[in-house]
Amino acid sequence: MSKNKLRIIPLGGLGEVGKNMTVYEYKGQIMIVDAGIMFPKNDMLGIDYIIPDFEYLRKRADKVAGIVITHGHEDHIGAVQHLIAEISAPIYATPLTLGLIEGKLLRNNATHKAELVTVNAGEKITVGPFDVEFFHICHSIPDCVGLGITSPAGLVVHMSDFKFDQTPVDNWPTDYAKLSEFSQRGVDLLLSDSTNAERPGWTPSEMVIGPAFDKVFAEAKGRVIVATFASLISRVQQVADAALKHGRKMALAGPSMVDNVKIARKLGYLDIPDDLLISIDQASQMQDHKVAIMCTGSQGEPSSIVGRLSAGTNRQFSLNTGDTIVLSSHPIPGNEETISKTINRLLRRGANVIYDAIAAVHVSGHASQEEQKLLFNLVRPKHFMPIHGELRQLSRHAKLAVEVGIPEENVIVVENGQVVELQGNKILLGERIPGDYVFVDGESIGDIDYDVMKERSQLARNGIMLIDLSVDKLSGRLLHDPEIITRGFVTSEDAEQLIPEVRKQIMNVVNGGGLDNEKDIINAVKSYLHQETKRRPMVFVTLSRG
Amino acid sequence: MSKNKLRIIPLGGLGEVGKNMTVYEYKGQIMIVDAGIMFPKNDMLGIDYIIPDFEYLRKRADKVAGIVITHGHEDHIGAVQHLIAEISAPIYATPLTLGLIEGKLLRNNATHKAELVTVNAGEKITVGPFDVEFFHICHSIPDCVGLGITSPAGLVVHMSDFKFDQTPVDNWPTDYAKLSEFSQRGVDLLLSDSTNAERPGWTPSEMVIGPAFDKVFAEAKGRVIVATFASLISRVQQVADAALKHGRKMALAGPSMVDNVKIARKLGYLDIPDDLLISIDQASQMQDHKVAIMCTGSQGEPSSIVGRLSAGTNRQFSLNTGDTIVLSSHPIPGNEETISKTINRLLRRGANVIYDAIAAVHVSGHASQEEQKLLFNLVRPKHFMPIHGELRQLSRHAKLAVEVGIPEENVIVVENGQVVELQGNKILLGERIPGDYVFVDGESIGDIDYDVMKERSQLARNGIMLIDLSVDKLSGRLLHDPEIITRGFVTSEDAEQLIPEVRKQIMNVVNGGGLDNEKDIINAVKSYLHQETKRRPMVFVTLSRG
Repeated sequence: MSKNKLRIIPLGGLGEVGKNMTVYEYKGQIMIVDAGIMFPKNDMLGIDYIIPDFEYLRKRADKVAGIVITHGHEDHIGAVQHLIAEISAPIYATPLTLGLIEGKLLRNNATHKAELVTVNAGEKITVGPFDVEFFHICHSIPDCVGLGITSPAGLVVHMSDFKFDQTPVDNWPTDYAKLSEFSQRGVDLLLSDSTNAERPGWTPSEMVIGPAFDKVFAEAKGRVIVATFASLISRVQQVADAALKHGRKMALAGPSMVDNVKIARKLGYLDIPDDLLISIDQASQMQDHKVAIMCTGSQGEPSSIVGRLSAGTNRQFSLNTGDTIVLSSHPIPGNEETISKTINRLLRRGANVIYDAIAAVHVSGHASQEEQKLLFNLVRPKHFMPIHGELRQLSRHAKLAVEVGIPEENVIVVENGQVVELQGNKILLGERIPGDYVFVDGESIGDIDYDVMKERSQLARNGIMLIDLSVDKLSGRLLHDPEIITRGFVTSEDAEQLIPEVRKQIMNVVNGGGLDNEKDIINAVKSYLHQETKRRPMVFVTLSRG
Repeated sequence: MSKNKLRIIPLGGLGEVGKNMTVYEYKGQIMIVDAGIMFPKNDMLGIDYIIPDFEYLRKRADKVAGIVITHGHEDHIGAVQHLIAEISAPIYATPLTLGLIEGKLLRNNATHKAELVTVNAGEKITVGPFDVEFFHICHSIPDCVGLGITSPAGLVVHMSDFKFDQTPVDNWPTDYAKLSEFSQRGVDLLLSDSTNAERPGWTPSEMVIGPAFDKVFAEAKGRVIVATFASLISRVQQVADAALKHGRKMALAGPSMVDNVKIARKLGYLDIPDDLLISIDQASQMQDHKVAIMCTGSQGEPSSIVGRLSAGTNRQFSLNTGDTIVLSSHPIPGNEETISKTINRLLRRGANVIYDAIAAVHVSGHASQEEQKLLFNLVRPKHFMPIHGELRQLSRHAKLAVEVGIPEENVIVVENGQVVELQGNKILLGERIPGDYVFVDGESIGDIDYDVMKERSQLARNGIMLIDLSVDKLSGRLLHDPEIITRGFVTSEDAEQLIPEVRKQIMNVVNGGGLDNEKDIINAVKSYLHQETKRRPMVFVTLSRG
């Protein structure tokens, strides 16, 4: 380990660098920033979600001085329960973020006690060798912060997810003064959100959603159902405002939505009068045009509320013809197909469906190119390291930095697990540590690896054939016809036609005396099936000699 | 069957209505428009491609008077080989489209002879009871036509994929005069492309790509590699123009690209001087900055040229640091993840990667909202039926028609397999016919159904466990320890830990005397595995009594 160097390690995030976690290390002392989850890609079969690899941290658990969380979205807090199961350190965050973490731990019956420490934007804490200044930034959730991290090796500004919204829903713009102050002190390194590095211009303010909702509420003849992420607290405020204005009551559906709203209201981050809120049961007793429902499931997942509404299988309430359903979110990359399918199904049920292609019912929470350039000019960092994006976004973000005047050799693009070392005027590549991610499937963590995933994909592509044989020990002949079943291979009718032929192939091997082991049969059957169907199912033989 | 009615049946296309095929029927006589394929969605595991369900046509094969193809893209010609294997009828198309069909049939060794009849834009043919006027429309392939279909039941204008490009690459704009002429005759029904019905404004002209390529070619220090669809003939022209201008030779990679360019040049649809073209081998002997390569694989599929370049496994040529690779296409919905992964890999290999988010190296070939509205005003149809889109795009397109003044009751939105009947002033819903699609996997067609797909998905989600038991016939006791293998379930290390416990569970059942059949064991193992892992693999037991 290099002395007097600040080591920075991005982790997690499915190729999105440092999306879910960034580790800061100085003289062996560690501070963790964020602990989030990612949702699996389409080719990660059967996986529930993904967490960063804690390998490096696990080995240095006693060196972790603290965990700092920048905001309350799942991709920043979702892995806290897993992290604190292995690493005991205080968690520092703003009130809303801590409230959401607490709610999450409760819902998941997290057994490990977390030490939660409230830090307000504008305050400074000490975490091991680091002085950490929390400063307010705008994003699509209130109470989001960036971090000014001072260590003997220099000053780092860590921008988490942000946008420069001049008219945010909570009227609390980004702390530009703080950014300028850092700039005057001299920023050695900036880490910043690359999500929208391919998007020119400025991201529209959350304010544009107001008029869009206004129009939807004014024109809707039936109920208005708005679906979004449970953690999009500011969207809840906007729907509540529209409901109030248009004389509708608002009901909430989805446990995480209900929980989060409760927490945000209690902490004063939502301004919703008590009598505006009703239960889903009360809503079902009212006239349709008096009701707004806010729910989760905007990504159209089959098991979500919107997914179930589209399939007609939601228990609490169902979709009526004439309902207006608003998908107030943008597809997470990879979810496009699912969302389209869901929209088609909702339309088929006679609903009026509003989504971001039709009206401005969603805006991004991330800075576009002009905002990213403004940030460079506000902070004027010596070095720049893009985070929160795949290599394509990071490369683009790096180019923007160079356009704005940061020397190319001072911009460092790395991937997860690559240690970056900062010392005074220099930024260098350190070693690589395990920076991959860990699959969570069911209750168990990490017992799925790439080999298992590859087997799943192979099973899925061509299915399986199972062959059960009983062979006479003495004569080597079959005691009865081979029993054969298939799954995921061909239709049962086609299997009926194929199986007699497969039996013949097996007979040929057995009677040809070539039955030294199951491999002979497997090979014969595989090559026959490939010749007939051009497919390669997994073939298994069980052989008993009686 | 209703007499004197024109019956119109959209088919094919994965929920994209009439995308791959539309059937016209009058007094039992049939004309087929287009015969294309679609590529599978992410949840269609192991499927190669999808063709329309020919069930209705198969039963009426002798009534099919002709097959009319509007243009040479895969989603309009890709299923011709399968169609003519079942239905014998002449194929009518423009010269380039026929050339591409011919090339395709040759490449696939199509054994069934096709009768190919050349029809030029501006000409009229008779197909059974239909007079069909071919008229030129702009799209991202030359020689594309719309159809004016006259039958005793009325005049239908069938707009295939189109855009109103005022400056197309081949200088041949849409035949506006013909559209106006139809309008004067009185159009009873318009069918038209809904692909971009959610996109406001005008689709940019193909011309904008010229300057974008110009910039790329001017700035590239190494080779320029441009990837696009093999059927995007006009893009080939644009790359050839840029290569010529910037003193580079052009090589082609990918058999379909090579074939298509040969056909298009022979027929005069590409203007490329002989000495501009070189082979890949020749290109590898030249200095990098003198070379442009045009290839397929712009969707980043692992087995495509670009996919292999990104993985370092392409045989003909590989990627050098400093090469500029241009992905001149837009992700087909569902391919976003694959393309992103490929872009990241190309960047990792040191290539400069240009795609549509970075520069205007691709524009859509489909009309946006303002063009769609212009079409309504040019054609002034009595009735309108949106095609080529999912329900979400069709609904949007229908709303645009109403905005422009077509009475709501004259707009009909249907899905594949829904018969629409036109008679004079009326448009009505007919019956539903099998309008689903047929999966093609390997060599075989249609032997994959939803049940097989469901099994594949189940295999993929949780994997399998196979248990082989030998039981003593007399005592009912196990002859040896159960043999257990898993695939796609847990890692081999975890399996090693789980399997002894599974054996115990099996012993409990067997020794408990409860071994009436394999079901008991399956149930015991399943419930144990679910309790331990919260997963539900498929469990199979083979049992032999010796």
